Amino acid sequence: MSAPNRATLWGRILVDELAKGGLEAVCLSPGSRSTPLTVAFAESDIEVFSHLDERSAAFFALGRARRTGEPTALVCTSGTAAANFHPAVVEANQARVPLLVLTADRPAELRDSGANQTIDQVDLYGDAVRWDAELPEPEADERKVRSLRTTAARALAKTTGVPPGPVHLNCPFRKPLEPTETGEVPDAFADTLAGRGRDGAFVETSGGGPTLDAATIRDLARALASADRPLIVAGPADPADLVDLEPAAVVDLANRIGAPVLADPLSNLRFGAHTRDGPVFGGYDSYIDELPAPDTVLRVGASPTSKPLRHALRDADADQCLVDPAGEWREATFTATDLLAATPDSVVTALLERLEEDEEATAPDPGAEWLEQFERAEKHHWQIRDAALEGDALESTPFEGAILASVFEDAPDPATVFVSNSMPIRDADRFGRPRTADLTVLGNRGASGIDGITSTTLGAGSATDDPLVLVTGDLALYHDANGLLAVDRCGVDATIVLLDNDGGGIFHKLPIEEFEPPFTDQFKTPHGLEFDKLADLYGLEFERVSPAEFSEAYRRSLEAEGTQVLSVGFDSESSHRRREDLEAQVRAAVAEDLENASGS
Amino acid sequence: MSAPNRATLWGRILVDELAKGGLEAVCLSPGSRSTPLTVAFAESDIEVFSHLDERSAAFFALGRARRTGEPTALVCTSGTAAANFHPAVVEANQARVPLLVLTADRPAELRDSGANQTIDQVDLYGDAVRWDAELPEPEADERKVRSLRTTAARALAKTTGVPPGPVHLNCPFRKPLEPTETGEVPDAFADTLAGRGRDGAFVETSGGGPTLDAATIRDLARALASADRPLIVAGPADPADLVDLEPAAVVDLANRIGAPVLADPLSNLRFGAHTRDGPVFGGYDSYIDELPAPDTVLRVGASPTSKPLRHALRDADADQCLVDPAGEWREATFTATDLLAATPDSVVTALLERLEEDEEATAPDPGAEWLEQFERAEKHHWQIRDAALEGDALESTPFEGAILASVFEDAPDPATVFVSNSMPIRDADRFGRPRTADLTVLGNRGASGIDGITSTTLGAGSATDDPLVLVTGDLALYHDANGLLAVDRCGVDATIVLLDNDGGGIFHKLPIEEFEPPFTDQFKTPHGLEFDKLADLYGLEFERVSPAEFSEAYRRSLEAEGTQVLSVGFDSESSHRRREDLEAQVRAAVAEDLENASGS
Repeated sequence: MSAPNRATLWGRILVDELAKGGLEAVCLSPGSRSTPLTVAFAESDIEVFSHLDERSAAFFALGRARRTGEPTALVCTSGTAAANFHPAVVEANQARVPLLVLTADRPAELRDSGANQTIDQVDLYGDAVRWDAELPEPEADERKVRSLRTTAARALAKTTGVPPGPVHLNCPFRKPLEPTETGEVPDAFADTLAGRGRDGAFVETSGGGPTLDAATIRDLARALASADRPLIVAGPADPADLVDLEPAAVVDLANRIGAPVLADPLSNLRFGAHTRDGPVFGGYDSYIDELPAPDTVLRVGASPTSKPLRHALRDADADQCLVDPAGEWREATFTATDLLAATPDSVVTALLERLEEDEEATAPDPGAEWLEQFERAEKHHWQIRDAALEGDALESTPFEGAILASVFEDAPDPATVFVSNSMPIRDADRFGRPRTADLTVLGNRGASGIDGITSTTLGAGSATDDPLVLVTGDLALYHDANGLLAVDRCGVDATIVLLDNDGGGIFHKLPIEEFEPPFTDQFKTPHGLEFDKLADLYGLEFERVSPAEFSEAYRRSLEAEGTQVLSVGFDSESSHRRREDLEAQVRAAVAEDLENASGS
Repeated sequence: MSAPNRATLWGRILVDELAKGGLEAVCLSPGSRSTPLTVAFAESDIEVFSHLDERSAAFFALGRARRTGEPTALVCTSGTAAANFHPAVVEANQARVPLLVLTADRPAELRDSGANQTIDQVDLYGDAVRWDAELPEPEADERKVRSLRTTAARALAKTTGVPPGPVHLNCPFRKPLEPTETGEVPDAFADTLAGRGRDGAFVETSGGGPTLDAATIRDLARALASADRPLIVAGPADPADLVDLEPAAVVDLANRIGAPVLADPLSNLRFGAHTRDGPVFGGYDSYIDELPAPDTVLRVGASPTSKPLRHALRDADADQCLVDPAGEWREATFTATDLLAATPDSVVTALLERLEEDEEATAPDPGAEWLEQFERAEKHHWQIRDAALEGDALESTPFEGAILASVFEDAPDPATVFVSNSMPIRDADRFGRPRTADLTVLGNRGASGIDGITSTTLGAGSATDDPLVLVTGDLALYHDANGLLAVDRCGVDATIVLLDNDGGGIFHKLPIEEFEPPFTDQFKTPHGLEFDKLADLYGLEFERVSPAEFSEAYRRSLEAEGTQVLSVGFDSESSHRRREDLEAQVRAAVAEDLENASGS
């Protein structure tokens, strides 16, 4: 029997337990103190991704976990390496993404002693983690080893609890760190070392999300069924956070109660086969203000990306029910009236059953006019958008929304599309039309940073053979330029759509635009970076395409091997004016429509 | 009188107070929530540096503060931007660098509400800051405004307290954020708005470092004067941390008590005019093991970079006195015997005065042999190094140390030299010979990360007209590649010496080298990056030079305008063997010398 030193033994047991608990992937960054973990992961069946910048590593792990809903582990050495994980840990916390952060540390006696590369790593991420623990010092002691397996299994289980999120284990090691043999066979507790005589984890955590009682469901079913203007709003939510919510069930419910489903591009409800079978809408950002207010709203996921939608909900005199499995109150206008602390899946399923059974709940037929108003407004929105995309119109006044339209319209089925924050996600929201293709659309909408976007995308891509698309602005691509190293090192192919407006285009949307200085120097911040050179550094193909050429280049890239950067240049100011213009057109058309309807 | 809205007013008062308190520079990153701060800084006389990646921004600020000893401020928007500051905040804490971190935030009611880009920023950096406070919400209320000025002045003063370090102010703002006028003139407290009717800060903090009492100084003076083998060890220390310690005074003391001064390259004592006047040594890493152990040691600064030196001190049966103004115990071998919680300046000055006055203390003459042993060993070290640098020797067996030798030998007087962690600092320690030139040598030795190295260097360079040199490895240059944007945006010229061994050369020094796999894939991690392309991206000149050509190319670059990357390729394994070989030669020469001396 192998008799490694205690650090090596400890690393192997920890990794063995994580593997038994179902961990499938880890991102490792090189370092000395983490050697026992690195060695154990490299020996294991867990898939290893090697990253040289810990900030990018953490976002890569985040992306993989977002795409799979399964925990991804992270390993780094002691010191500032661990602080580089912080931005992704914050995003994982806010967006409920399962991450297991393993930070190697020096032995406790070296803290606050001036020892090299030794910082205080305990509680490094504050409240941003679901759980944090410090492992004891490695020792071949039976109770300690049982505690190690228990802690590892608990930590892994916590990452996918309700809600999912990041967990931090700080792991002190002392030398020797390399996998030397000691010659001392730890025999007395060989069974403990090997785990239990059963498959799976040393300790299994069983659990589940909360469900509502029958009376609450009955009242809710009646409220929805009797509403004149019921509305379902699906905000951003990762699959792991939705806990098995079936899009088809949401559509069933919507049909049953006559409610439009306003589906955020990150809701996992805007795209998919279910959109064929019911009223799933995506153009609301431009017309929601013009329509009558809802009277009863059922909300799942986080707060919607669309500010007009958030404001319309704020201003509606409606009963608004938030469904959240974690019982959090994710509604920052403070107009929601009811929190349903239960899994969306259980709520929707129970409502459907109840509506089926309960004649009283099914009695009042919702007004057909309500749904039709949305349908007509939606039609105006996409017609006006389509007109703006036509050759001549697009060439005379190119705008960024045209690219987002094509990104979703021309994406293969299935595909994974990651959309950066700032303008791309807002344009995806406005111009990404619902379709039946199986598009998994992801964004970092927990804290909405523009950091780590590229790495999160490549991490998501590492988990699937789907074609992978990233839509990013130039600032976000610069911010995580280091993340591009993963294209080669981790073998991920992507199509990177770069909307290059040389700086912070989003600031043209804000009142600070009128104040010059400091607008250009401190907000717009043009940088003049030539991204063909960045592509060259990382061995990516680079193509500059005009908006009119984009669709074709995009489809070609999706069929090609390797990673292409398709760069489309825009003037952010005129692009923003074009958005305003389109929105005004939609609003006018919808308003006229309503007037005609009420006049007739 | 201008009557801006409350957020703008608040930002202006805050910045006005910081300017009055002496703040000279700020690093701004674009964002919306921070608009009131950005606008106020842009209007002020404080020098503004604009950065697009907050991680790099924070290290740039750190570098500037390291070089000047004066606080640099940092501003970011809400969300993960603030978490990107964390690595530099950790380094500032450990290395005692004055940083004032201003994070914009959304109003308190939006926390934990699912609001966009809103995270919990209170206590974000944990124990890594000297002080953290959350400002109240902006309001044109007289007491609030007095509290704002007081808090700002206190925060700034805290950054340069004993010890210096980072301070965090979280700054919530609500809209409007842009500098609109309200028309309401706040007249009742116009004086408070303008600050007091005097120059300088609203509240002044006076203070100073601790000093020792006469009895302690007397005992210490006697101990040093009567020691047979006294030694002064100067570890890494920024000028701000040393609190006015004059290198000449250290040399006076060394001469007075017959003690060698072992000067870490980051001690600010290895280079300068004072080295002409006394026994300042730099080659100890290779010979300290061979010499007799000291019996009395006076230590200033942090723990030395040289592991052989740390181990020699650990193994010496000596009285070891740590001098530290913050009263911290920065000695991780736990063999130091006395902590002198006082400023090094006050201790050295008082010792010199005491030795002057006290006949008893001056009675025993330290053995000349003790100093001579060091002098001879030092001579062997540099002779053997020089032989290794000669044309043929260098061409047949190039090694990284040759470059570090030239970096210091050929640097102009004055110059600022920043040395990366991992191998460069270790080679600087071994091969950087003391000289009289005024070289300011800096490194990030607080937490010893390889992150943020480029930005720290450029920040240091922004504060001085000295020629600026960065010595970095390829991993560090990759890690903070984004930092290169500051060359153009912040107008800093540098000579970047790139020691490119394609991965983590330092791991060849560690036992894990013997374990393949996972050595190459997970530790050495060759990445194949072509840094000429990185240079191209950032508009830098790039030159590949052989070790033999290096000195000339280096001198040429230092005289040239613009930023040049001088890339010298090495095989890290053979380079490491060469270091071992040179060390063995020095040890053998010193050992033989000692034997001859004892035999004679």
